[in-house]
Amino acid sequence: MRLATHQLGDRTIATVDTGSGPRCAGAASVDELLRQDDWRAAARRAAEEGEALPPAARPLAPIRAPGKVLCCGLNYRAHIEEMGRGVPEVPTFFAKWADTLVGPEADVALAAGDTTKLDWEAELAVVVGADLRRASVAECAAAIAGYTVSNDVSLRDRQWATTQWLSGKAWDATTPVGPVVVTTDAFDPAEHVVTCRVDGETVQHAPLDDLLFPPAELLHHASLFTRLRPGDLVLTGTPAGVGAGRDPQRFLSDGQVLETEISGIGLLRNTIRIRA
Amino acid sequence: MRLATHQLGDRTIATVDTGSGPRCAGAASVDELLRQDDWRAAARRAAEEGEALPPAARPLAPIRAPGKVLCCGLNYRAHIEEMGRGVPEVPTFFAKWADTLVGPEADVALAAGDTTKLDWEAELAVVVGADLRRASVAECAAAIAGYTVSNDVSLRDRQWATTQWLSGKAWDATTPVGPVVVTTDAFDPAEHVVTCRVDGETVQHAPLDDLLFPPAELLHHASLFTRLRPGDLVLTGTPAGVGAGRDPQRFLSDGQVLETEISGIGLLRNTIRIRA
Repeated sequence: MRLATHQLGDRTIATVDTGSGPRCAGAASVDELLRQDDWRAAARRAAEEGEALPPAARPLAPIRAPGKVLCCGLNYRAHIEEMGRGVPEVPTFFAKWADTLVGPEADVALAAGDTTKLDWEAELAVVVGADLRRASVAECAAAIAGYTVSNDVSLRDRQWATTQWLSGKAWDATTPVGPVVVTTDAFDPAEHVVTCRVDGETVQHAPLDDLLFPPAELLHHASLFTRLRPGDLVLTGTPAGVGAGRDPQRFLSDGQVLETEISGIGLLRNTIRIRA
Repeated sequence: MRLATHQLGDRTIATVDTGSGPRCAGAASVDELLRQDDWRAAARRAAEEGEALPPAARPLAPIRAPGKVLCCGLNYRAHIEEMGRGVPEVPTFFAKWADTLVGPEADVALAAGDTTKLDWEAELAVVVGADLRRASVAECAAAIAGYTVSNDVSLRDRQWATTQWLSGKAWDATTPVGPVVVTTDAFDPAEHVVTCRVDGETVQHAPLDDLLFPPAELLHHASLFTRLRPGDLVLTGTPAGVGAGRDPQRFLSDGQVLETEISGIGLLRNTIRIRA
């Protein structure tokens, strides 16, 4: 199943697509759908009986109000090397908020003084479908609702101004997410690749089975310290090829088009806007 | 005004105290009260017309469901020195979640394998009372609803296992908050001191005017990257005297009583419980 959230006039609506196009579910977003009892049954019902989505609808970030957005840094060996770090024994976690997320076609808009080092980080994101606390890797695997595409766009000067990355990583409305959440029955990360393009040039391209901590292991480590709930989002880290890891370094500028794609899920296409 | 949240049977209730004891307001928590239009008028009305709080009520963390909990590390000069860091030009921000908070009389409960380095960090916490994004220091000062007491209890081994502190700082149910939020008309941080005691022994004691980034400056820096809203909580950092900064180092153990106090606000009294 492919789950999405759309804007339609002044309301938002979750949709379910099992092959015959998106059909409206009785929820305002994918995360709201996932919080329903037996969301899989509700989604199947919507796919069979829901109204077709009107063509005027526009795609939004599928997850609108996650309780938690957890991110893993340094989770691909080649990216760890390009950033000059050692291979970690536990995941490096940091947080974003719902405010950090933007949709699959939205601009990433900043003011001129915000950053001179705007960088890309294409990532697989995991969507949680059940409660998890102190959960085993197997329990975590069973609790994954599905996967989506994200770009952990980073303001490197802000990220590195102190030891803690938060302000450069959780800047409002800078992390594109979407366009759909593909449920686990229809997507195996080990068979797919993530790609990032800037103005059409491929800057990142890596198989998802290179992850040091695969999705269920990441959720296990996270669940040791905090409860995960349906609709929570976990970004799994980025492969090699970020702008800050290049020689010379290279960053995003006004008007550039950032494309983030995972085969089997879909494409984010976001334009960078830097207000003078 | 002194704002608080209490458990009464199976419901929670916000109270307002202007000197004649806590009176019930029409909100389930202080953060819910602060999200009402003209919360100051609503609070004054509750103080005049609200029912007295029944004596069976128990105090909770006054802020129950903050959208954001932002924390500043390294904000007192002597603490920066004991941690071996340089004086920062911008605040070091990291995040907690609503799940991280516990009440003023709650146990801080962990399992034996969670940490061997449980440490205290007594802190002034700022409660946001209005929307703030890219706001000036003066706008931020006007948007502070009030102040409360917190202890940024830290699992140092988890905090320092990677470069990012999150898992050692945002461990579920480890950050005591409360017992009341004192509004800005009744509390000036510059006139007060924060104290931390372990089993009655004073381990931290510092005037709040030693803060490198005072409350309104912290909110200003935070509002540059993310929108703050009523009910959000900003922990301002801890003074010198933490266990990890001592020689030899010293950490909390099962059964110890952690007291955190700010003159003019009140006292948190939390027992450490480590399950074998």
